Amino acid sequence: MPITANDPKRKTWLETPPDTDFPIQNIPFGVFLTRDDIITIGTRIGDYAIDLGALHQLGYFSGIELTDDIFLQDTLNDFISDGRKTWRLVRNRIADIFDNENPKLRDNNEHRKHILFTLDEVEMQLPVQVGDYTDFYSSKEHATNVGTMFRGKDNALMPNWLHIPVGYHGRSSSIIPSGINARRPWGQTLPEGATEPIFGPSKLVDFELEMAFITTDANVLGEPIPVNEAEEYIFGLVLFNDWSARDIQKWEYVPLGPFLAKNFASSISPWIVTLDALQPFKVEGPKPIMEQLPYLQYKGKKSYDINLEVYICPENGEENKISNSNFKYMYWNMAQQLAHHTINGCNVNSGDMMGSGTISGPSQDSYGSMLELTWRGEKPIKLSDGTERKFINDNDTVILKGFCKNENVRIGFGECRTKLLPAINM
Amino acid sequence: MPITANDPKRKTWLETPPDTDFPIQNIPFGVFLTRDDIITIGTRIGDYAIDLGALHQLGYFSGIELTDDIFLQDTLNDFISDGRKTWRLVRNRIADIFDNENPKLRDNNEHRKHILFTLDEVEMQLPVQVGDYTDFYSSKEHATNVGTMFRGKDNALMPNWLHIPVGYHGRSSSIIPSGINARRPWGQTLPEGATEPIFGPSKLVDFELEMAFITTDANVLGEPIPVNEAEEYIFGLVLFNDWSARDIQKWEYVPLGPFLAKNFASSISPWIVTLDALQPFKVEGPKPIMEQLPYLQYKGKKSYDINLEVYICPENGEENKISNSNFKYMYWNMAQQLAHHTINGCNVNSGDMMGSGTISGPSQDSYGSMLELTWRGEKPIKLSDGTERKFINDNDTVILKGFCKNENVRIGFGECRTKLLPAINM
Repeated sequence: MPITANDPKRKTWLETPPDTDFPIQNIPFGVFLTRDDIITIGTRIGDYAIDLGALHQLGYFSGIELTDDIFLQDTLNDFISDGRKTWRLVRNRIADIFDNENPKLRDNNEHRKHILFTLDEVEMQLPVQVGDYTDFYSSKEHATNVGTMFRGKDNALMPNWLHIPVGYHGRSSSIIPSGINARRPWGQTLPEGATEPIFGPSKLVDFELEMAFITTDANVLGEPIPVNEAEEYIFGLVLFNDWSARDIQKWEYVPLGPFLAKNFASSISPWIVTLDALQPFKVEGPKPIMEQLPYLQYKGKKSYDINLEVYICPENGEENKISNSNFKYMYWNMAQQLAHHTINGCNVNSGDMMGSGTISGPSQDSYGSMLELTWRGEKPIKLSDGTERKFINDNDTVILKGFCKNENVRIGFGECRTKLLPAINM
Repeated sequence: MPITANDPKRKTWLETPPDTDFPIQNIPFGVFLTRDDIITIGTRIGDYAIDLGALHQLGYFSGIELTDDIFLQDTLNDFISDGRKTWRLVRNRIADIFDNENPKLRDNNEHRKHILFTLDEVEMQLPVQVGDYTDFYSSKEHATNVGTMFRGKDNALMPNWLHIPVGYHGRSSSIIPSGINARRPWGQTLPEGATEPIFGPSKLVDFELEMAFITTDANVLGEPIPVNEAEEYIFGLVLFNDWSARDIQKWEYVPLGPFLAKNFASSISPWIVTLDALQPFKVEGPKPIMEQLPYLQYKGKKSYDINLEVYICPENGEENKISNSNFKYMYWNMAQQLAHHTINGCNVNSGDMMGSGTISGPSQDSYGSMLELTWRGEKPIKLSDGTERKFINDNDTVILKGFCKNENVRIGFGECRTKLLPAINM
């Protein structure tokens, strides 16, 4: 089925700001609370949030096989379960409804009142109930940087890294949408040179610049997903900040991996941009340095050219851009990650979320964490207000932004914005 | 509120086999499919499955604040969310309904037909939808055994082990109830002496003898649970077999922990035995070898004397007992695990599951995995049919059993039984 929603020539009758992340070619999916305290599934064009529940009730999706309440839900999980064909039909229809040439809704004031909200009238929620969340570790630059810091240049990459899209399980309960605050965590740390741990608020709270993809029901327990089919099961992507407490992590993570250093909060942007919308931005990925096992060998382009930016905004201050990276730097792509995740028969469900791992680029200003940007705090970053940052300070807001751009169209993710509150009193 | 359901003198009018795991003092909770293809929440006394949905509809829970459909659900999550007071009222009431002296249901044939099922008339399901599953690593004997094998006797325990109830996140989608088969997984492994991995079915599939506890909604994001309150949030326990592919684990697990080596299947027993039912079996835990940080220091008894057994049953063969362990061997108890898990503010929900980690005892016949029982395969176990096992063979069934016993009563968990099917063809 053609993705007519992507037509770069299409214009909408809605007023949209120039250079918006959400032109009519984007049509992402999210969940929001309306001014009437109703939760609904919606999309966004320009600075309008669009109530898909109301659109459906008013008959705008007639002819598409959808249950009556598919959009009147507090998560996208059931809609995602409906599968790629339905996503595509719905997205194409939405493009059609808001197309400049289509008078049906455009000229119906009554309907528009029920369907359109300005952004300040809605409160974005988590778009899915995340059943399981997995985080990968798929940027070679990031793994090399961290490995160099902890084991020296010659042993930077672990022996398995070039063979395996290394991943580990994360905590889904503490995933929060953009706009919800995180808290500096308490925990055990081992001071430099000490033999006994101490207990206190983490001193080294860091962000991690990641993207995450959301899956549909992909397989039954026991059956792998072939690498060249994997993208069929990916609904879309969000920006993802995998908050990390480096001092807690260092003391706890051997031998079973990060735990409390990560599960105090993980932030995502609220609009899931569909893989369909990103099709114009497919690019070749990095060439494998070493031959990969057949189940990881793929055909065609499976990387995406998505510009990524990180900003720190001190309390009452301004946004300081501290990193420029790109999703295309990932050594292992999403199809390889999903093929690897299921090669042992592990089952993947609608609403599962898979993080990319920190996305660092080749240059120092493209690193995806404070750990790397300041090289363990050795080279602090200067902000516009004259203060310095080695890691994230109390009341700093960390903002991730992401967008694709070509000569025709810009498809963006908006923001993933999280303020770090001070540790609670104990 | 007194736990009258635990009264050891109580007898039931139901016929129960001598030495059953499920006397009237147990009253566990589970979910089953009935002969009429209806899913319901139930309990078990002797060899009867009891439909709590039907009991509720017939008015047997009058006076207890419960929504009408609380038992007509396919998971226990909502009932567990109702909290400890409700669990206790319902358990006390069930004990009362089936008490020898109570004629109400005993003498009502019509009601009994709707409420009582023999075990062969029901099909046990997963008792909860597991939102997040965490696995700990809390048996000192197990950590020492594994550490000795991989790093030698002098470095067996990692420096953090005596300070932290080490834990890591697991995969909830592949948790299966007793009776569902597992599959030997495919994966990458690094043969002895090789520098490149190979791809094939795991050769070293192992069980892990664990118990797991199920929580209720415990805290909001950002707020820790104090160690001495933690048990208030524990609904009950199940037997847990954390299937592990040792060869896949060895190659993949550095530096972020086990992943595909574990997430192909994890089996649990279907009846959740409440923490209330286990109160008579509270015992002192092992003395701390080293002082623990204040947030991990607890008052009173928080360990439980639960006998654990492991059996291997070859296809068409008989059950061979291969291990006798006990839950009381755990160095870190459940209250410490939950206090640690939340000390950074991580939020815990109804239906979350926390595994103990492999429970090995002090003697060689009390180890909780083939890895330890056969010492990496060096000392194979002889079965009654003359065959040997280093790890688990195709079509072997692994059975975990668990029970508490004192002079008055036996409270058991039944079985966690899983057959390992051969790897799929690729």
